[in-house]
Amino acid sequence: MAIRMYDLAGGEPNRRFSPYCWRIRMALAHKRLPVETIPWRFTDKAAIARSGQERVPVIEDGDRVVADSWAIANYLEDAYPDRPSLFGGAAARAVARFINGWADTVQNAAISTFVANDVVRHLDPRDQDYFQRSRTQRFRMTLEQYCANREGRIAGFRQTLEPLRHTLRSQPFLGGAAALYPDYIVFGGFQWARTISDFALLEADDPIAAWRERMLDLHDGLARLNPGY
Amino acid sequence: MAIRMYDLAGGEPNRRFSPYCWRIRMALAHKRLPVETIPWRFTDKAAIARSGQERVPVIEDGDRVVADSWAIANYLEDAYPDRPSLFGGAAARAVARFINGWADTVQNAAISTFVANDVVRHLDPRDQDYFQRSRTQRFRMTLEQYCANREGRIAGFRQTLEPLRHTLRSQPFLGGAAALYPDYIVFGGFQWARTISDFALLEADDPIAAWRERMLDLHDGLARLNPGY
Repeated sequence: MAIRMYDLAGGEPNRRFSPYCWRIRMALAHKRLPVETIPWRFTDKAAIARSGQERVPVIEDGDRVVADSWAIANYLEDAYPDRPSLFGGAAARAVARFINGWADTVQNAAISTFVANDVVRHLDPRDQDYFQRSRTQRFRMTLEQYCANREGRIAGFRQTLEPLRHTLRSQPFLGGAAALYPDYIVFGGFQWARTISDFALLEADDPIAAWRERMLDLHDGLARLNPGY
Repeated sequence: MAIRMYDLAGGEPNRRFSPYCWRIRMALAHKRLPVETIPWRFTDKAAIARSGQERVPVIEDGDRVVADSWAIANYLEDAYPDRPSLFGGAAARAVARFINGWADTVQNAAISTFVANDVVRHLDPRDQDYFQRSRTQRFRMTLEQYCANREGRIAGFRQTLEPLRHTLRSQPFLGGAAALYPDYIVFGGFQWARTISDFALLEADDPIAAWRERMLDLHDGLARLNPGY
């Protein structure tokens, strides 16, 4: 039986835009594990109540319910050791945690300030009020204010990507010659942006942009086939 | 014959304060490779001319001369595969490059703005003019200006360490249960600061401070025995 995954969706059910869900979509493809994705909206809290928390991704694998992208990646690696490795060993798994922390607290925190307001027009109608209200409360300002002056801030954002650029100047993927889970961690943030916003996060000649193209090609173009800009 | 390493020193020959040299001192100890360190000053360019560049660390291993901390770590890993692994496999080595980039462009770039002016009083007299002149030129301001308002900036610096803190809340070392080269990469920056400045980069209850203590204990207290604050 295929793994089931609750996957954040917009008004178009195929517009999947969660950076954390994309980590796991790519990880499942990497491990060649069939998945049945279930379009999920922010207000569908009841559908994932069994996971004991309110956010996606959540997977169901037979009787097992696992939430949180890092926990899910680790679950998949341990439960399916005969499939292609996501991490490439214990040391690489430990070191990947740093990249997970960087992506959550630096990369995605910043991307949010560029694309959060573009989420709105892609939301399912039932999510509109919830999203605007919860984000205004979290950011203590309107989404328009939160995403203001993007052009003035983009150079600073690109500078914060220097560790990523440094790495991708020297090797094709964060995992080395081939993509590993650290690539999916970081790619999730760019795929989130690509899916909901036409704002250009990267300059065309940035080595990160070339890597993003390689990531879009992986697993038969899985991420490229998703609606995006 | 022991590996020879040119190691940045102050007026006291035992005050070794280069973050990049500390990466390699720790890496050599990790691999249990004996080393003869040669105190080196900024103006001793001639002593390392054979390396084809002007910065330390530089190691000499028999006829081999290797410069640049990342290149040296990789050389040691490949030349001494029977010794304890620095990286823990090919995937972990690839992923470590990201941490190397982060430490160089984020961590150490920031630490410089807190401690560069404290370097001066520890320098060998022959380095004083060179250091002041070259840094004033590089930073386009005096060292006093470059390091101004440390108290006002320290909270922002501590915030940039969040990926590190995130990781060390979940595991004792960046390498997992035990230290690996990524730990030495990041530790080098803190050891640089500790060696030349009494300015507190970390709060006492920061998980990073506890990790730093663990790092100071490693290899029979190698780093703790170095003069420091």
